[in-house]
Amino acid sequence: MSDVIRMIEQLGRAARSAARELAVCASASKNRALAAAAGRVRASGPEILKANRTDIDAAGERGISGALLDRLRLDEARLAAIAAGLEQVAALPDPVGRELARWQRPNGLDIARVAVPIGVIGVIYESRPNVTADAAALCLKAGNAVILRGGSEAVHSNRAIHAAIVAGLDQAGIDRGAVQMVPDQDRALVGALLGAHESVDVIVPRGGRSLVERVQRDARVPVFAHLDGNNHLYWHRSADPAMAIDVIVNAKLRRPGICGALETLLIDSECLEHLPALVDVLAARGCELRGDLRACAVDARLAAAQHDDWATEYLDAILAIRTVDGLDAALAHIAEFGSGHTDGVLAEEPALVETFLQRVDSAIVLHNASTQFADGGEFGFGAEIGIATGRLHARGPVGLEQLTTFNYRVRGSGQIRA
Amino acid sequence: MSDVIRMIEQLGRAARSAARELAVCASASKNRALAAAAGRVRASGPEILKANRTDIDAAGERGISGALLDRLRLDEARLAAIAAGLEQVAALPDPVGRELARWQRPNGLDIARVAVPIGVIGVIYESRPNVTADAAALCLKAGNAVILRGGSEAVHSNRAIHAAIVAGLDQAGIDRGAVQMVPDQDRALVGALLGAHESVDVIVPRGGRSLVERVQRDARVPVFAHLDGNNHLYWHRSADPAMAIDVIVNAKLRRPGICGALETLLIDSECLEHLPALVDVLAARGCELRGDLRACAVDARLAAAQHDDWATEYLDAILAIRTVDGLDAALAHIAEFGSGHTDGVLAEEPALVETFLQRVDSAIVLHNASTQFADGGEFGFGAEIGIATGRLHARGPVGLEQLTTFNYRVRGSGQIRA
Repeated sequence: MSDVIRMIEQLGRAARSAARELAVCASASKNRALAAAAGRVRASGPEILKANRTDIDAAGERGISGALLDRLRLDEARLAAIAAGLEQVAALPDPVGRELARWQRPNGLDIARVAVPIGVIGVIYESRPNVTADAAALCLKAGNAVILRGGSEAVHSNRAIHAAIVAGLDQAGIDRGAVQMVPDQDRALVGALLGAHESVDVIVPRGGRSLVERVQRDARVPVFAHLDGNNHLYWHRSADPAMAIDVIVNAKLRRPGICGALETLLIDSECLEHLPALVDVLAARGCELRGDLRACAVDARLAAAQHDDWATEYLDAILAIRTVDGLDAALAHIAEFGSGHTDGVLAEEPALVETFLQRVDSAIVLHNASTQFADGGEFGFGAEIGIATGRLHARGPVGLEQLTTFNYRVRGSGQIRA
Repeated sequence: MSDVIRMIEQLGRAARSAARELAVCASASKNRALAAAAGRVRASGPEILKANRTDIDAAGERGISGALLDRLRLDEARLAAIAAGLEQVAALPDPVGRELARWQRPNGLDIARVAVPIGVIGVIYESRPNVTADAAALCLKAGNAVILRGGSEAVHSNRAIHAAIVAGLDQAGIDRGAVQMVPDQDRALVGALLGAHESVDVIVPRGGRSLVERVQRDARVPVFAHLDGNNHLYWHRSADPAMAIDVIVNAKLRRPGICGALETLLIDSECLEHLPALVDVLAARGCELRGDLRACAVDARLAAAQHDDWATEYLDAILAIRTVDGLDAALAHIAEFGSGHTDGVLAEEPALVETFLQRVDSAIVLHNASTQFADGGEFGFGAEIGIATGRLHARGPVGLEQLTTFNYRVRGSGQIRA
């Protein structure tokens, strides 16, 4: 057995053992650990920023700049946000022990379905050091042990934040195995973690497309993730045009780089007359527009879209616009090109809206609302570890509830089976 | 690309297309298909029995006999049970479209979590031809398309039953892609199915340990299954001895070969005095008993257990008995040797019972009831496709509800994100 596999197994055993205790850990203890970790993040601000400086310098030497460097950088405000994030998770209701269902059988057996932690969660992430704290907090609050593997460019920052979390665990008397960090940056450890189906119950990748793609391809462990957010809005003639334009502009431009951003507008041929008013707003805000022939014919400011545009998640201020004849054509386009993330309809006809909501098979389907609401915080989950487009267990924003599973507790009085 | 992969992809595309329609198919249509299939099973009894005769003869020539041959055999009564099973599933409530949760956000967004089908389910099974009908019915009722791959020893029987189901689909106007059978018995097709993560959303193996082991090892698709049911009862001194003995005897001997059967009794050292009374009943019913040293010292009818006995799922009239000093020792034994299937406690002390139910991390934990209740029918699910010991999505008996997933339906009135 190779060294990396042995190392992951060791982490896995420690995690499994900690998870057993965490599963029955009082909410107060978990919350105390999170609060203490927040305090320690604040108290050791200078050390964390110094560690971050080391990472930033090394990144600079390797020629990393721009957005990548910005993701890596910590400052007082970001540290404060990390500490506040830990406290926010402490303040959320404990998802463990919820009675999800309970019923009695004719023979008197009382059956309860109760939320319990998943067990051990592996989190593989890239350059944002805040993920160290955010992921650890969510996993811990849901009673799971977590094995963290951050990007090598952030290794000193991550270790410093991890140390603060471990201090929090210590203060609450929680086993350090609850939040472990893969101890070195050997890339083979990622492979070993992805294959560790005995040690790890689920893997959550946090990062760019290539990371998620690699994790989904190589993992022998279930994965909560989304690869693309190629999201659509279908604009039906029954929608109020001003409302539709507001929502489309927000869905595309509020933050074009997030996975919930709108990528393709499906405009019904019966509302093409409103297209110029939309283009006025989008073009004024610097959005590039690519339309099919019919849309281009209505508004010359649109460039001609290519077939690839329908399949592209721009994550940028570019919108593809396709004309469709009616709901069925919109549904067919989404079924062909959608990525199952977030798709919506702009309309006022109730029957049409309900048909859309029933027939679009995406994690989130919306009516008259911006696709940018695809977010655990906006859903009221308090925090999220990511958004999943897989079909099993977790779908859509993955908050505390989806970081639990359940078992059945059957209470009897001596029942035997006939 | 190999032929087998191409063939599975073809089935997968047809299944995916059928699944899209099934997801919004009215309950009445699905029920009509099931009722029509039941009628066709009854009407074509002679053909199905003739096909089964072909399988039985071939099995006889290959020297198959005993339990294996019995599993393969159909007769009038079994056919009637298959038809009745289809009707029973038709009579169950439709799990699709259930509102699992619904809440409003301060901005007025209305968010509903709604049950939707999983999509495409692959079922790989061995010699029981009834699985063809049972699995198809459950998948169909939950709005899923299913790809069936039965054992080669039952191929003629399975095809005949499948033809009856297809006739049912036709009568209800449901796409035949909804219930497909892998068209030939090439074993490479099983491998292709296990790797078809684009075509299939989950695999359910139905059969012996070697089949489940192979599926769990090779599948690149999530699997709902259990490998072992190494189930325990912990007998605490607070239990009524007569109740405890009744439950233990039922848990072990009602049907020793099912996955919910008791395999190891953990007897508290404080109730060893009751052991002989238990042994009286078990021995009289032909149960072999293997105990640790302390148990053997109390009752000479016990043979000495070896370490392996604690890890063994006998599936037979053999019971391992280990003496434990208190709850913690019982919990430690279950954590070490249990398979996460079904474990129970026999006791009357409420605090001890609750601690046991909270701390044992198995799909099903029981109090004062036979482990043989580990069954979807006994849980009130109407029918089950199997029992899962995995931690994600489905755990315990997998009935119609666990054959669905969910999505979020967000209803707004023009909300945009700040």
